Amino acid sequence: MAGFLEATAVRRTAEGRYQAELDPMWSIGTKPNGGYLLAILTRAAVDAVGPAHPQPTAVSAHYLSAPPAGPVELRVETLRVGRSAAQVRASLYSADRHCVEALITCGELPAAASAPWWSGVPIVQLPPEEACRRLSGDDPRFPVPLLSVVSERLDPACVGFATAGSGSGLGEMRGWVRLADGTQPDPLTLLVAADCLPPATFDLGLLGSWVPTLELTVYVRAVPAPGPLRVRLRVRLITDGRVDEECDVWDSTGALVATGHQLAALRLPDAPASAAADAAVAAAD
Amino acid sequence: MAGFLEATAVRRTAEGRYQAELDPMWSIGTKPNGGYLLAILTRAAVDAVGPAHPQPTAVSAHYLSAPPAGPVELRVETLRVGRSAAQVRASLYSADRHCVEALITCGELPAAASAPWWSGVPIVQLPPEEACRRLSGDDPRFPVPLLSVVSERLDPACVGFATAGSGSGLGEMRGWVRLADGTQPDPLTLLVAADCLPPATFDLGLLGSWVPTLELTVYVRAVPAPGPLRVRLRVRLITDGRVDEECDVWDSTGALVATGHQLAALRLPDAPASAAADAAVAAAD
Repeated sequence: MAGFLEATAVRRTAEGRYQAELDPMWSIGTKPNGGYLLAILTRAAVDAVGPAHPQPTAVSAHYLSAPPAGPVELRVETLRVGRSAAQVRASLYSADRHCVEALITCGELPAAASAPWWSGVPIVQLPPEEACRRLSGDDPRFPVPLLSVVSERLDPACVGFATAGSGSGLGEMRGWVRLADGTQPDPLTLLVAADCLPPATFDLGLLGSWVPTLELTVYVRAVPAPGPLRVRLRVRLITDGRVDEECDVWDSTGALVATGHQLAALRLPDAPASAAADAAVAAAD
Repeated sequence: MAGFLEATAVRRTAEGRYQAELDPMWSIGTKPNGGYLLAILTRAAVDAVGPAHPQPTAVSAHYLSAPPAGPVELRVETLRVGRSAAQVRASLYSADRHCVEALITCGELPAAASAPWWSGVPIVQLPPEEACRRLSGDDPRFPVPLLSVVSERLDPACVGFATAGSGSGLGEMRGWVRLADGTQPDPLTLLVAADCLPPATFDLGLLGSWVPTLELTVYVRAVPAPGPLRVRLRVRLITDGRVDEECDVWDSTGALVATGHQLAALRLPDAPASAAADAAVAAAD
């Protein structure tokens, strides 16, 4: 099983052109995870910009269509290189089909250890990692291969959707996240972390809903320290078939290192409790 | 004084090419407001996409450099037109200098009157509009022309930065917003509303800080009803010279119609209380 570095590797083929191979393990069902696609695009963008702006600070992606696993081409155009920031346009194509369009501002991130000047976002409270429930994506009715490569241990208070067929009603998922291959998190990992938890709509009883991302923006604020990430995903508003969710990611020192916002379509299953619903998670341990 | 429609008008000159004129009134100091630039880009995008997708649903912009007032060229490329959404790339140039790059997903918005299925964002509590303080941008030390074309009445609890030289410490601005020309709000107005209040950093005592936007994403959720908008801007995290802020916009029926997120650089003034600080606002009325 390829680790994160291999799964997000890019190979420069010409000025502004890269090839990558979408690994089917980084998928929900058969659709590559949106944060995973963003990590690949950002790896190419950072390479194109060069060492003066080595990390992403703000990444926005609009999703046009879901690519299948397999080879993709990345087209990267550096729009501006300034003193403290560089902006890049990055597009992902699968067999000439335009699948993702992203804008990436690169810069230099501080080490997470530096204390914030001010925070309006208290750290999420979680039970100890070992007391949380590791999600398994092995149910053949709706496999989630991503859960094999990203270890997600949810607060037991959030797993009602899987264990009891109903949510807490808070519209929140929270838990500990690690790369399953043991790789320590880096700024690109945070792009995946900001989009890897089960849809927070599950916690509102919208079991089996399919929540394809329309837009995802992630602000990366610091290089994460080694160790597990704390991740909290919250529903903000559901109306007229669209939902927006906010995701905060803290590193093992308790620093808020990334925040993601996404707007997604909300497609409800035909049956009240579809296979995707209860199959999305089977608590392992 | 040109109203919102005139100030954001675009003229198609060729396939994917538009001209517009940046009106100096829609500025903070001499810099055009980021939401105003987004509204112009989005007007061109919506025109290019055509009537099947008449409104913006998700708009992300990365700011490369601030254009001066005057003529600009917009280059618009439709990336995909689907059944329920279309995606557009839109770029703003001032005399061949690339100033803003945006991605715009268009679709059809519901009327605001439809109740949300679920909301995790309680409506902001405000004193009545007439009990709030209209901001004036007339101080010659740091003029804010925007405050003449956008009427902003802040909750008196948030104006300490202007009246007492200090903030409440909550990192929040909230108030009533209207277009000063009497035009009722539309989806493009919401892009301005999501970026028009004074920096919420002022409420933390960071008076006179200059907060240039690096990235701004706005989700537009519904067509706003006529009447004043309630707007709340909150600081989420300040660390290492960058700040992210979250802005919610409700229409006069109490519907949450737009949410903006921005990452900005935070540049502190040399003097503890610069001209920009106390001059940013002089309460009128």
